[in-house]
Amino acid sequence: MLEKLTPLAESEKSLVKAEISALKSRLTSQQQQIKQAKLPVIVLIEGWGAAGKGSLISDIILNIDPRSFTVRSTTPPTVEESRHPFLWRYFKEIPEAGQFLFFDSAWYGETIQNVMCDGLDGKAYRRRIDSINAFERQLTDNGYLVVKFFVHIPKKIQDERFEKLLESENTEWRISKADKRENRHYKEYAAAWDKLLDLTSPSYAPWHVVDGSERSKRLQVYRALTDAIAAALAARKDGQVPQCDPPTEVFPLLPMPRLAAVPLGQQVDDADYRVRLKEAQNRLKDLHNRIYRQKIPVVIVYEGWDAAGKGGNIKRVAAALDPRGYEVVPIAAPDKHEISRHYLWRFWNRVPKTGHITIFDRSWYGRVMVERIEGFCKEADWKRAYREMNEFEQELHNWGAVILKFWIHIDKDTQLARFNERQNTPEKQWKITDEDWRNREKWDQYEVAVDEMLQKTSTAYAPWHIIESTDKKYARLKVLGILIDALEEALREKE
Amino acid sequence: MLEKLTPLAESEKSLVKAEISALKSRLTSQQQQIKQAKLPVIVLIEGWGAAGKGSLISDIILNIDPRSFTVRSTTPPTVEESRHPFLWRYFKEIPEAGQFLFFDSAWYGETIQNVMCDGLDGKAYRRRIDSINAFERQLTDNGYLVVKFFVHIPKKIQDERFEKLLESENTEWRISKADKRENRHYKEYAAAWDKLLDLTSPSYAPWHVVDGSERSKRLQVYRALTDAIAAALAARKDGQVPQCDPPTEVFPLLPMPRLAAVPLGQQVDDADYRVRLKEAQNRLKDLHNRIYRQKIPVVIVYEGWDAAGKGGNIKRVAAALDPRGYEVVPIAAPDKHEISRHYLWRFWNRVPKTGHITIFDRSWYGRVMVERIEGFCKEADWKRAYREMNEFEQELHNWGAVILKFWIHIDKDTQLARFNERQNTPEKQWKITDEDWRNREKWDQYEVAVDEMLQKTSTAYAPWHIIESTDKKYARLKVLGILIDALEEALREKE
Repeated sequence: MLEKLTPLAESEKSLVKAEISALKSRLTSQQQQIKQAKLPVIVLIEGWGAAGKGSLISDIILNIDPRSFTVRSTTPPTVEESRHPFLWRYFKEIPEAGQFLFFDSAWYGETIQNVMCDGLDGKAYRRRIDSINAFERQLTDNGYLVVKFFVHIPKKIQDERFEKLLESENTEWRISKADKRENRHYKEYAAAWDKLLDLTSPSYAPWHVVDGSERSKRLQVYRALTDAIAAALAARKDGQVPQCDPPTEVFPLLPMPRLAAVPLGQQVDDADYRVRLKEAQNRLKDLHNRIYRQKIPVVIVYEGWDAAGKGGNIKRVAAALDPRGYEVVPIAAPDKHEISRHYLWRFWNRVPKTGHITIFDRSWYGRVMVERIEGFCKEADWKRAYREMNEFEQELHNWGAVILKFWIHIDKDTQLARFNERQNTPEKQWKITDEDWRNREKWDQYEVAVDEMLQKTSTAYAPWHIIESTDKKYARLKVLGILIDALEEALREKE
Repeated sequence: MLEKLTPLAESEKSLVKAEISALKSRLTSQQQQIKQAKLPVIVLIEGWGAAGKGSLISDIILNIDPRSFTVRSTTPPTVEESRHPFLWRYFKEIPEAGQFLFFDSAWYGETIQNVMCDGLDGKAYRRRIDSINAFERQLTDNGYLVVKFFVHIPKKIQDERFEKLLESENTEWRISKADKRENRHYKEYAAAWDKLLDLTSPSYAPWHVVDGSERSKRLQVYRALTDAIAAALAARKDGQVPQCDPPTEVFPLLPMPRLAAVPLGQQVDDADYRVRLKEAQNRLKDLHNRIYRQKIPVVIVYEGWDAAGKGGNIKRVAAALDPRGYEVVPIAAPDKHEISRHYLWRFWNRVPKTGHITIFDRSWYGRVMVERIEGFCKEADWKRAYREMNEFEQELHNWGAVILKFWIHIDKDTQLARFNERQNTPEKQWKITDEDWRNREKWDQYEVAVDEMLQKTSTAYAPWHIIESTDKKYARLKVLGILIDALEEALREKE
């Protein structure tokens, strides 16, 4: 890909300055439209050390209202960051609608470091490419514009620039050890970049390779950037976001029964329950200690009917855990910062670090349940979400997480009995709201949605478990049992 | 303070179990009231290694809905954390209204480490004590309940417990190097704790020292915790938050003129402006490089009349800065997570790291302007805020930050002319809203509020500068000049 560089023709050079100036004005006026159209724009600048990435960003942002952009300069991951999945620190940074985000190197620069210094190759490398492509496709499908530049300079120019920077103590600190290594092994780095760019240039987020040794690089960058923005704005004119064409890869889906076919009524007697609960909690306590030491992250998702017993079930799991190593995250309607970003952003933000457990009390699956049924997102959005959520969980799985998803299940009559009991018991009345009654009226719609969700998102690496909960005690023991088995299996593989 | 321990009388011991059980039920029922009263509760557990802090927290949280609490275990600061002020990582964690936060060691444990290992003493130690007391007072005044426990065990018990833990590889990892050091120097640590507890036990957040070697420690903890909650709930019955009595310490206030007495009309001609702007920006660019290398953090606050020219002024400053080293933070109305916490929380969250610059486009001063005038907070709240904001900035200053605050000033006629121009220029119409006109009607009220703000919050370490902006070019040069002088002075002190 690096050879595809087309230097400017001699005749064009005189026009460069005037055209850059015109393109800058174009960018300034596009910014207002971006705000109005609520278009979030991610601009990625990758390239060689001393290619001029920083000064390019400095030049671009002069044309934009400082309140409308953020610049992120990517450094090697901190300890905190390296205890999270690769994409975590990038996903956390994605801008709100109508805002620019500039990355001075990002997931590509980090990947090249991993290839050249940490031995990333083979299957892990292919996975990385898949992650990156899925990430950018998800961003695009969810309304983001992703514009990517690689600023290229030949080794000779890099040599000269490094030499000059090293001359003064005011500038020598700008050349890092990694930069020096890159310069020494220029050829190998070039080959690695070439391969990486070739594998990550889909039509929805193509690479623009610009010649960093030419004055005209700015012309090329401004032209590509403003053209991409114009195209994105034009495509949004009718409120539609153009959708990418995902690969046809099939997820390892597990067969799931329809809810209507799940027998209910299992029970456990009181004395038996107390003994078995204690026993299970003791085992879980020990397992938590071991997964903490083995640095295995665990993600637990609870979904279920209102009054199915989610809260009490979570409590019995949490009671067995060391409070310093887990977190319960209750999910309600998104706030304004959350709603103006990719819907998975708030969940990516809450991914546990290695060795920790996060229990989501409701989750990203709201996308295909409440948001689908209440019309909070478009049909295309929730239909696409099955794949996006499978991909999200695949990311977590590949990183090493244990993922368990529980559907806490009751029938309609049981719900009615519990609603009435709550209504009639003063200290439980806070648990029942008008919204619960309204949701109940939509039981059949929800059942269709839940069935579809279970069919389409129960994967080998992140299975759904239907937990019969007409007897809450039975449901608690069942969840604890599944959790214990899963953690033991993960430890067997690791220890 | 450690001797104040009152072990349980023999006669009491038989009652312990029953009473603990009753107190647990009390806590469970208090939790609903806490939620309804929107009372945020911070419980701090400090104490010796192996005193049983962790298991105490585990025991308490069993009585609380897992969706209503978070547990934070404090470890030594990460690199990211150590590039921020001491209180930063704790302020970031404060809970939302109606939620519990448990700290397994926090600002006290860190302070003891600083005293014993990093030589914290003298003036810096006294400052630390002031910071902590101000932090807890601010939390209390802003509606938080802070409950603090120190779990005490004598050296002999610690020796025995360490020995037992070290016997098995399943438990030996629980004893850190710091724990071992504490055990070796038990006496010195005890003296340091004694002094620290004595200096930080105000009536609004007193220490509860409990005997960690006694079964009864739980009784003491549950009793103190539920009593404190009951008292806080009772005090809030009429919607009032009881206010602490702050020390009478006076801030080093600078004299400020009334706005009405500030002459306006200064001008700069176009050619002169262009030359001087370029020159100032070049100097600033160089200074940014140097403060980055000297790791000096810079906080810049912009406030001013609508249409005074804040945006364009910020743009001229930002244009001179390396985008990787600064951030512009526009402040709008708080979102729901922000409004349910201490009002300074969202600003603490945006404090720059060392070597970086944060430019706030509007700021915490909204508390004493828009929130005061629109009645978004109570009179007691905005009146108290002057001190709280001075304390906040003092924290930043003591940490090493350069703090500059600009009031961009115009007169009422200039504002009208600019409003009309915006209204009549199609590409500027987005800049003017009905709210701007409504605010304009309240000019006189704002002038009173701004005058009071300038009088009460212009300190030697964080001065206000009134920037005459009837000629925006003049205003930009003035800001750049002040900024350059301040950075040069900070560098002189450091280099």
